[in-house]
Parts: sequence; C-alpha cells; structure tokens
Amino acid sequence: MPEESSLGPLFSPGSIAIVGASLNPFSGGYQFTRFLIDHGFQGKLHLVNPASGEILGLKVYPRLTEIPEPSVDYVISCIPAESVLPLLDDCGKKNVKLVHLFTARLKETGRDRETKLQSDILEKAKKLGIRILGPNCMGIYYPKFGLSFNHQLPRESGSVGGFFQSGGGAAEFVRYAALRGVRFSKVVSYGNASDIDEVELLDYFASDSETEIIASYIEGVKDGRKFVESLALAAKEKPVIVLKGGRGRTGAKLALSHTASLAGSINVWQAALKQCGATMVSSFQELIDQVVAFTFLPPITGRRVIVAGGGGGKSMVSADVWEEEGFELPELTAEFRKKLKEKVPELWDWVRNPIDASLFQGTPMVDINVLEWLSKEDGFDIWVANLTQDDPLPEDIWENVLAPNFLNSVAAIKKNGKSVVCVIETGEIGPAEMKSWKWRAIAETRRQIVNRGLAVFPSPERAARAIRKLVDYWTWRGSESELL
Amino acid sequence: MPEESSLGPLFSPGSIAIVGASLNPFSGGYQFTRFLIDHGFQGKLHLVNPASGEILGLKVYPRLTEIPEPSVDYVISCIPAESVLPLLDDCGKKNVKLVHLFTARLKETGRDRETKLQSDILEKAKKLGIRILGPNCMGIYYPKFGLSFNHQLPRESGSVGGFFQSGGGAAEFVRYAALRGVRFSKVVSYGNASDIDEVELLDYFASDSETEIIASYIEGVKDGRKFVESLALAAKEKPVIVLKGGRGRTGAKLALSHTASLAGSINVWQAALKQCGATMVSSFQELIDQVVAFTFLPPITGRRVIVAGGGGGKSMVSADVWEEEGFELPELTAEFRKKLKEKVPELWDWVRNPIDASLFQGTPMVDINVLEWLSKEDGFDIWVANLTQDDPLPEDIWENVLAPNFLNSVAAIKKNGKSVVCVIETGEIGPAEMKSWKWRAIAETRRQIVNRGLAVFPSPERAARAIRKLVDYWTWRGSESELL
Repeated sequence: MPEESSLGPLFSPGSIAIVGASLNPFSGGYQFTRFLIDHGFQGKLHLVNPASGEILGLKVYPRLTEIPEPSVDYVISCIPAESVLPLLDDCGKKNVKLVHLFTARLKETGRDRETKLQSDILEKAKKLGIRILGPNCMGIYYPKFGLSFNHQLPRESGSVGGFFQSGGGAAEFVRYAALRGVRFSKVVSYGNASDIDEVELLDYFASDSETEIIASYIEGVKDGRKFVESLALAAKEKPVIVLKGGRGRTGAKLALSHTASLAGSINVWQAALKQCGATMVSSFQELIDQVVAFTFLPPITGRRVIVAGGGGGKSMVSADVWEEEGFELPELTAEFRKKLKEKVPELWDWVRNPIDASLFQGTPMVDINVLEWLSKEDGFDIWVANLTQDDPLPEDIWENVLAPNFLNSVAAIKKNGKSVVCVIETGEIGPAEMKSWKWRAIAETRRQIVNRGLAVFPSPERAARAIRKLVDYWTWRGSESELL
Repeated sequence: MPEESSLGPLFSPGSIAIVGASLNPFSGGYQFTRFLIDHGFQGKLHLVNPASGEILGLKVYPRLTEIPEPSVDYVISCIPAESVLPLLDDCGKKNVKLVHLFTARLKETGRDRETKLQSDILEKAKKLGIRILGPNCMGIYYPKFGLSFNHQLPRESGSVGGFFQSGGGAAEFVRYAALRGVRFSKVVSYGNASDIDEVELLDYFASDSETEIIASYIEGVKDGRKFVESLALAAKEKPVIVLKGGRGRTGAKLALSHTASLAGSINVWQAALKQCGATMVSSFQELIDQVVAFTFLPPITGRRVIVAGGGGGKSMVSADVWEEEGFELPELTAEFRKKLKEKVPELWDWVRNPIDASLFQGTPMVDINVLEWLSKEDGFDIWVANLTQDDPLPEDIWENVLAPNFLNSVAAIKKNGKSVVCVIETGEIGPAEMKSWKWRAIAETRRQIVNRGLAVFPSPERAARAIRKLVDYWTWRGSESELL
C-alpha cells in the first residue's frame, strides 16, 4: 500500500476564496461560485473582486487580505496570469495551502514570456509553502465535500477517482459516466501540472481509501520513470485506467499547446502500461465503458460467456463480437438440454448459445423465464443480456410483460451469483423520439437497470472490449500475486 | 450496368393477401395487417382465416380462393409450416406471383422432417411458377408502396436499399438509421433464402434505379462464386456494405440454426470482399454509420481533415482517433495565420489543427465565426465538427448563441463546398435526462443537423472508421476506372 499522500488535507478545505469572482455568467469567477453553491460546499466560501459588492447573495471582498478570517485554506484564481504573482503574496499572508489556477495562457501558449511567468509563479509559491493546482485547469470535483468543477454533477459519492489533464474531458467524463450509474470519490483536473502532477495524483488516488477505481486522462508526463514506478504500485492496489491524449503525430505537437506536455512515443507508453498492469483505452467513451465495467462487475478471470436476447441476427453478431475479443461461448450442457426437453420439446435440440430469445415466443418457456432458469447452471463466467428494440409488440405488452421479464431475469441472474452485462442499443434518442412510447420505454428500462447496480453498455462491441480488458486486468492481478 | 431483375414487379404488388390473419396482437397475422394499414399500402389488402369475421375493420375470407378477385399478386403466409403446401395449391389457383413465408420452423431447426418440408415447398412453388421469399423472414419494407415489416417505420423514401438475412436486424437497422436521417428505397428480409437469395437480391439492388447505396446482412451464401461475381459488378455501380454474421466459431454453427446457412470462413470472405470493392462492417451499429457516411457525404478520396470544436482534451483525442484511421491533419497555412494575426493577435501562433475552440472564448473570433472563415481555405478534404457537452454555460446562451453558431457554421462550411462530418456524443439519454435543458438542447441540435442533410456520428471513433471506409471505397472506384 503506498504511503498516504499530503494532498488529502489540501483537497478537503475548510474555507475557499474565489479570487476574480464575477457577475458575468461567461466567466470562471461566476461559474465556480455557482458550482460551489449549487453542490453545497460545506466550508466557508469567500468571494474576492476589487469591485466589491455582492454575487449570488454573497459579500465580495475587494482583496484576499480583507477577508475577516485569520486563514483561507484554498484559493481558486480566476484572474489574468499577470496578476497571479501579487495574489500569491496575499495568499502567503492568509496562510493559504493550495491555489487552484483556473488562470490560463501560461506555458501552454508556447511563448517565452508566459513560460517564464509560469515558473516564476511556481518558484514564489514554493518559497511561500503554497501548493499549486494547474494552471489552466478546472480543479476539483469532490461531491462529499461539495466541491465541483461543473454544474449539476452528481451530489452522491462513489468509488471512482480520477485525474484529468483536460478540464472539459473531466467534466464530460463525470457527466456521461453518471448516466451509466457511476459515482465518484473525487475527480481532479490538473492542466499544466506545474506543481501537482500526474505522479503525485496517481500516488494520492492509489492510497485514497475512498477510491477503488482510478480513471485518468494524461497528455504527457514529466518523469517517465517515476510515473511507471507509481503506476506499477497503484495497479497492484486497484484498477488504473489510462487514456493517453496525443498518441499520433499531430497530438504530440498539440499536447504542447494544450497543457504544455511532452507527449512521448505511444509505443513506449503502450509497452510500459502493459507491463505495469494498467488498462489503456483510446477515447473518452471507452474510458467510461471501462469505468462502468470495473464499477459493476466483480474480479472475473474466466472468459466463458452466455449471450442471450435479441433475435437471431443480433445474437449472432453479438457472438461474433465477443469471440473476436477472445471470449468463448460454451455449448449448453447435456443436463440442461434434458431439462429443456421436458419443458419445450420443440426447441430442446435447437436452442444454442447465443440464445435467440425470439425462438421461445409462443412456448411455455416465456412464462417460466428461461434466462433465470439457465442462470443457475454452471460452466460459464459472464451472462450477456441483449435488450432489443425490434420487437413489434404493443406498448402494454412491453410494459407489463417484456420489460418486467427482462428486469426480473437480469436481477435473478445476478442473484444467482453470475456476472451480468446488459447491452441496450438506445440509439440517438432525442425529444422527438421521447414522444414515442417505445424509445421512452427502452430508455426507462435502461434507467431501471442502472438503478439496480448493473453494468449497461450501448453496443456489443463496447461491452465486449471493456469486459475483455477487465478480465485481462484481474488475470494479471492473479498472476502477479502468484509470483509473490 | 446489371440487367433489370425480375424481382422488381414482384416487390410492387397490386394486391396482397395475409393468410393466417389474426386478432391476437402477438401474432404475425395481426402485425402484418397493422403494418400494411399503418404504412398506407396502396393496393388491395385481403385477409384470410378460416374463422372469418373482421380484423381492424377488414373483412376476413375463410380461404384464399374465396377472395372475390381473379388474382392476388402477393401472399404473406403467417400459418404453420405444415399448412404451407395446401396453401400453395390455392395460390396457384389465384395466380399468385410471390409468397412471403413469415412461416418459420423449417430448415433452420436442423431437423430432417422440416428440411424435407422446406424443399417440398420450394419444389411445388417452382412447378406452380410461384416465387418464394423466406421462409423464416419478415419480407419487404417498401415505403413508396406502403409495404412494411415493422411498425412506425418512415413513410418517406430514400436512396438506401438493403437485404437482410435477419428480420430483427432489418427492422432495427431501419429504425436506428432513420434517426440519423437515412431514408430507404426498399429493404428486404429474406431469412432462409430457399428461393430468392442473396445473389438475386444483390443483382436486383445493383440494377434498381431507386437504390444508390446497398446495405446487407448475410449469414451465409449458397454459391460463393456467383455471389462474388455479383458483388464485383454491384460495387462498380454503387457502394455495397456487407455485415457478415457468423464470423466466429460459434456463429458459424449458429447460422445453421438461425437461417440454415453455411457461414464460410471469415478470412475467405474478407479477402473476396476486399477484392470486389465491397465495404465490410462488423456490427449493426457500424452498418448504420457506414450508410450515414455514404448517404450524406460525396465521393471523397482525400484524407486531409480539419478537426474543430470541443475543448483541448476532446480535440486531442479526436486527432488521435482520426490519425489512427489513416487520416492526416494538415497544419494551418501561413496565409491563414496571417489573417488570424490581424483578428486575434493573442492566438495566431498558438491555434492549431485540431482547433481547440475554447481558446477563442473572450476574443472577437467567436463573433466573426472562425469556423466559417477557415472553411473557405483550401488544403483539406473533410471538416470534422465536434459538438461538446462540457460547456458550463446557461441555457439562454446555449440556445441563442452556441447552438445557432454551431448550426450556422456547419451549414456555411457545407455551402463552401467542403465535406462536413459532425460528431455529437449524445450519450445515453433517457426520460430523466430529457428534463434537463442541456441534454434536450443537444439532442435538438442533433435533430436540426440531421434535418439539414448532414452526417452525424455519436463518437469520433465511429465517424473516423466510417469515413475511412468511404474514402477507401471511392479511392478503389477511382483506381478501377483508371484500369478501364
């Protein structure tokens, strides 16, 4: 277990000052004020702006040093870069421990003057004993504490922690993963990483008892060797998922102008990450899929799947996709076929894995719920439940029969101790589609599955890829512990 | 140009009889009646059931031969397999040209008796001069004619034709592709292919003047050599997209029990398809992406993209993904930078391709619409416009500024003769999310883009993969014509 990090107390401030607080809704100074108020920040919140006055019902102090408290733990700087040095002097006087520089246009511009200013800021902060988060970042989302970097993120906490070099990426990650049922311990957007960097954040999350799964978006690392060492330690504790930005020719150049990062060769990255047991993904959507997999599924190491649901075509293509990711679809056992023969003699020799559920229409098997029954069988590791949109049945049948059947069977499968992966291709639903009962019903079924703590994926490919990487991770963990 | 197929007249019947019409909403006999009524079938519709009576306001005849017309063009059989042979005798008397056997449980059961019955049916039909579609299929969706195989499919026609060995796959394909703005000439579900098969359907769609793009889902082919010959001819006329079901070990076995198909080795398939210029896809979602690409984009052969929109992280990962699919992101030209220097001196040397649109916040460039301006530049083939969800701006700003700006700029880029690919990661939107203005607004923006005839993809990966295959196809077409 890595040592406890000194970042913990910094991320749980008793008081925050937003410097550059503003009434302009386009400005960071307004938005951060809104985020903290709306997410119920539990400490003291102070606003600072030379114009004084009042913002969102809070008094505005003309200067940090005017705040009538002996100390302020955490400052969010929303002022221009050239004003940060004098602000740090004030922070020293107020015993500030951490300054989050939302302030940008520093080293990432690629210009000499701004690059120099960034290092001057860092130097002064070091002298004053102040830690710097950023510059050019969105800071901290810590729902338990009421810290947030965007509007309307979940107020409840969960087990996923993350650090993101992109603030927009961090916000979209939280927002979209939340729709899939994921909740978060804390997520940190760290931008240019002038002080607090990927290594320190990784160490922090590895030792953080509130975090069980680590997600990250990294454009570049300052010290490759140290990063790999930290990664190797962290991945032995919990799954670490890494999305590397700047993998190609263009991205490597761009990393420089986005967060002033040196991107490094992607081949070196891939080799190093694999060695460390980290899980590498290629896009923000895949990052979310991977977090969903690790959140809702146990440490599976087997690769035998039963695929069920959907008509013949969907079953078949699902089977193809799962096999292409290295899974195996075992045959139904002779004992099970014998049971099947008693109940549905017309199908017993015909039904296969993947199970074309449409075959059971008009047989007694619909009623006795074949899926639940089969889920008591041994000989497989993962149950894949496809919910399809193609059924030409009317609304009341869907609501009263099909949807409850689907929900009950996946719940029963899970209750029988099997790992369940649901696949619902909700498609591109919009306000117009929401007027159709079918789309609404499918979306509602998805919500209920999420509420039951089950993993849902929007396509067989995305499900199979995420589960393959999950199995790879737990298999690696198993082989690692054998070596010890 | 392939010869005109004899299937054309069969697919445009003047009269249809549904044999086995029923009041039971779970039955095919009810559903097909509903489909034809709801989609406004333009010919005469007759219902047949020994129980007589009335269904959905239509008189039911006890037997096909009782219909008071000298002939019926097209029969949809919803009766059990064992009743099909006598039905064919009646069909002969009524001068029926095509029998669609929704009837299933024939060769796909893998049993001798059923397999024999399927060939007896075919033999008798041949003697009577009747063509068979199926068995075990959903038949024809032909919106211009009011034929449909599912409920609430689009009534308007379009340029995409398709043939699907899976009925459920066909229905979901139409339903989901329609949400992306695709419309169809006709789509045929052909099941066990006892008579009308993949070769005849491919020839038909290749010569069909209403069809510009061919989509297909195929589990197996009866005559590989003939299929490849037809494919080579068809792909020289129009894009042919093939989703092969049963690519793996399990799928090959399953194909037998789904539509009685011999699946064939996937390696042989891939090699043959590539040689013929067909576009191979791996899943139903990818099939839809590919159809969207061919429907909304011109015959692009260049691989230079400009990626714009989204914050730094999203831009960077988008660039990675496009490069990983073989595209190139050219640098912004010196002339363009010069213009940029005049307008936004603080950014001119910093902005790169991919364009992190968030950099322009607070500069005059937001107002003069940098995207439209840049779209007049030469030196690139495809414009990728990312719309992101991470912007922490309030509803009125989104509705009055951001969404109109996005829509206007993509429309202007298209007007300037550039190919536009929009990427909107709408996520897993459901009824609860629709209560949030932001999700609703994003979904609404997507709808408006679709309405403007632009291609929209739900992720950078899916966009890049589909466009890569489109460019591959048109590049192949170009090299083919050079050889002539």
